Amino acid sequence: MSVYQATASAPVNIACIKYWGKRDTKLILPTNSSLSVTLDQDHLRSTTTSRADASFEKDRLWLNGVEEEIKEGGRLATCIAEMKRLRRAVEEKDASQPKISSYHVHISSRNNFPTAAGLASSASGFAALVSSLAALYQLPASPSELSIIARQGSGSACRSLFGGFVAWQMGSAPDGSDSLAVEVAPREHWPDIHALICVVSDDKKGTSSTAGMQRTVETSALLQHRIAHVVPQRMAAISAAIQARDFDAFARITMQDSNQFHAVALDTDPPIFYMNDVSRAIIALVVEYNRVSVASDGKLKAAYTYDAGPNAVIYAPKENMREIVELIVKYFPQPEPFKDPFGLFGAAGVEGKLVDGFNPAVAKPFAVGAVKNLIHTRVGDGPRVLGAEEALLGVDGFPKSA
Amino acid sequence: MSVYQATASAPVNIACIKYWGKRDTKLILPTNSSLSVTLDQDHLRSTTTSRADASFEKDRLWLNGVEEEIKEGGRLATCIAEMKRLRRAVEEKDASQPKISSYHVHISSRNNFPTAAGLASSASGFAALVSSLAALYQLPASPSELSIIARQGSGSACRSLFGGFVAWQMGSAPDGSDSLAVEVAPREHWPDIHALICVVSDDKKGTSSTAGMQRTVETSALLQHRIAHVVPQRMAAISAAIQARDFDAFARITMQDSNQFHAVALDTDPPIFYMNDVSRAIIALVVEYNRVSVASDGKLKAAYTYDAGPNAVIYAPKENMREIVELIVKYFPQPEPFKDPFGLFGAAGVEGKLVDGFNPAVAKPFAVGAVKNLIHTRVGDGPRVLGAEEALLGVDGFPKSA
Repeated sequence: MSVYQATASAPVNIACIKYWGKRDTKLILPTNSSLSVTLDQDHLRSTTTSRADASFEKDRLWLNGVEEEIKEGGRLATCIAEMKRLRRAVEEKDASQPKISSYHVHISSRNNFPTAAGLASSASGFAALVSSLAALYQLPASPSELSIIARQGSGSACRSLFGGFVAWQMGSAPDGSDSLAVEVAPREHWPDIHALICVVSDDKKGTSSTAGMQRTVETSALLQHRIAHVVPQRMAAISAAIQARDFDAFARITMQDSNQFHAVALDTDPPIFYMNDVSRAIIALVVEYNRVSVASDGKLKAAYTYDAGPNAVIYAPKENMREIVELIVKYFPQPEPFKDPFGLFGAAGVEGKLVDGFNPAVAKPFAVGAVKNLIHTRVGDGPRVLGAEEALLGVDGFPKSA
Repeated sequence: MSVYQATASAPVNIACIKYWGKRDTKLILPTNSSLSVTLDQDHLRSTTTSRADASFEKDRLWLNGVEEEIKEGGRLATCIAEMKRLRRAVEEKDASQPKISSYHVHISSRNNFPTAAGLASSASGFAALVSSLAALYQLPASPSELSIIARQGSGSACRSLFGGFVAWQMGSAPDGSDSLAVEVAPREHWPDIHALICVVSDDKKGTSSTAGMQRTVETSALLQHRIAHVVPQRMAAISAAIQARDFDAFARITMQDSNQFHAVALDTDPPIFYMNDVSRAIIALVVEYNRVSVASDGKLKAAYTYDAGPNAVIYAPKENMREIVELIVKYFPQPEPFKDPFGLFGAAGVEGKLVDGFNPAVAKPFAVGAVKNLIHTRVGDGPRVLGAEEALLGVDGFPKSA
């Protein structure tokens, strides 16, 4: 008897032009297009194994070893149903295909980063789910087609179907058929883009992005202006910057759009805050680092961006990463010298240091733990289909123990 | 020989619809109208004595006992020159008037609140300056006419020429002749409005409002939308709320506009932050306090607002002030039980307490000193001309020692 099983991994993505607001909450259709950088799966990824078997009694899913309920009509159920529908179309076209679309599935998914890292796992998670089911079902679907389904799991998941630089085109069709991800440029076009994730401690649970963005849609007087007049122009400008590998323009737009996303969150009633005093201090450091650079050669050297939480992601060309890490650990001391996964900083790791001309008074140094973790990564590739040796389901069709 | 001297005091005002952005930086003409509540001079005021004397060799000014340079073409020089111009017109009309417009002036000004309180003193300061000179020169000018001159010292100073609820109409004339303050309602219309100022510690010096607002004008993509489409509607709505003594509407608009001012500051490049984690926590407390109230009778009971700094001002009807002080001191412990100047809370003062149904997890309690001072005041009257016994200049025409 055949085993119908596949495993895939998918990356995290961090937006430069932010997604904030749905025009259709069920289909997850956004109020504006967005654009992100896919991060390297070698460092941050979700991995998912899906199996279809006639003996399974219902669809089941385990996340990090813990079973999650697949609620009827919920996002997980929608994605699984949509993937089965695509499989059914394959089976209807080619009678020689096994009728596995009628089988229930067992799905096991793991993130290689702890939830405590404060990184949203829904994007990589739904992208891995859809990618593993696409492999299981041997679908002819393109990444853009799959992105339509991942989008219905979690909006920004659609962007994790591609590597490199990815646009989520908002589309206009009521059924969402043109609200999908496209590749702006592959990682190979600009592999030099690195990212430093500063994981920031926070005392309080912020507003969930699902709830928060709809409150903004309902109450912000500024959001409609952003949607209609700001984002379209920025999408075009940042796409051109990526094509031209113009980091200065890329950085400027990225920081402006992060600021504007948090501005419309603050313009919400009641207001939504995701950044805290540590986030603000990191902005002040990047602004000062760029000021020094602009004074010397007119160019920005780093770009911060913040999603719906206090963590900073700092994008920069690889050559600037040592200075940036030195800067961050100067103000946010780490328990040990920072070592990166690329061996860029040598065996000794990096300690705090400021570039010449930096005004140290732009922020005060924080205690150990204010930035509780640093993750150095870079632009990465899209979902990967993995070999059987990476499977997260055992021969019995249940999750292997971690 | 006659002594030509007058003393006046002027109040602080705190805006509900915020002034942020100039269309003319020399004349201080704003990009939008604004509206404020004048606070009680019994608690917070600037007092100024002006004297004109033929023996004085130049115009001189002392602020809190320290001489300030009156820079040629600067704001102080402009206000003094404008007031002398109005005096000259009086003298030209009536030959019996002494020709004191040609005399130099000595001016001594004091604030009864320390600079360290974090309250802007430029509004009350320029309003007191203009009021004392108007009394010295016995000008027939109305408060609105004087507000045009105070505006050229510090924009928001024009609103301190009136008590109660005051609008600064932005005007449209290039010479600024119609950019002036008008009374929306006197304090007697709604004397019940109290204010609690929470003076918040801050580690860093924020961006000055003069520099900050112009950076917003130059770089914020959202400010123009606020100016053109949001503020005009809010000015009308909050004026109507004041006329109707509708605290619920007043509070809603006040909080929304504070949020939007800070949103456009954040939408600035580089971004401007005035609120810190303590400010955010106070917002969370007011939001939760209002949530409990709305759940019970549908009405808001308090409104926060923040100017260009981390201090909160909480407006509320007098009857809610005990609950509000109890709430604030619960999360921001004070060295001693809080006593108010009205005797509302009795001899024992107020200690921390939450209203029934309040979710204590909306913020974490802070250490003593996070809110370093509480000032309880209320809506107040406009500038007062004071008696000679209050003069800040001695018989020699120089500042009395404090």
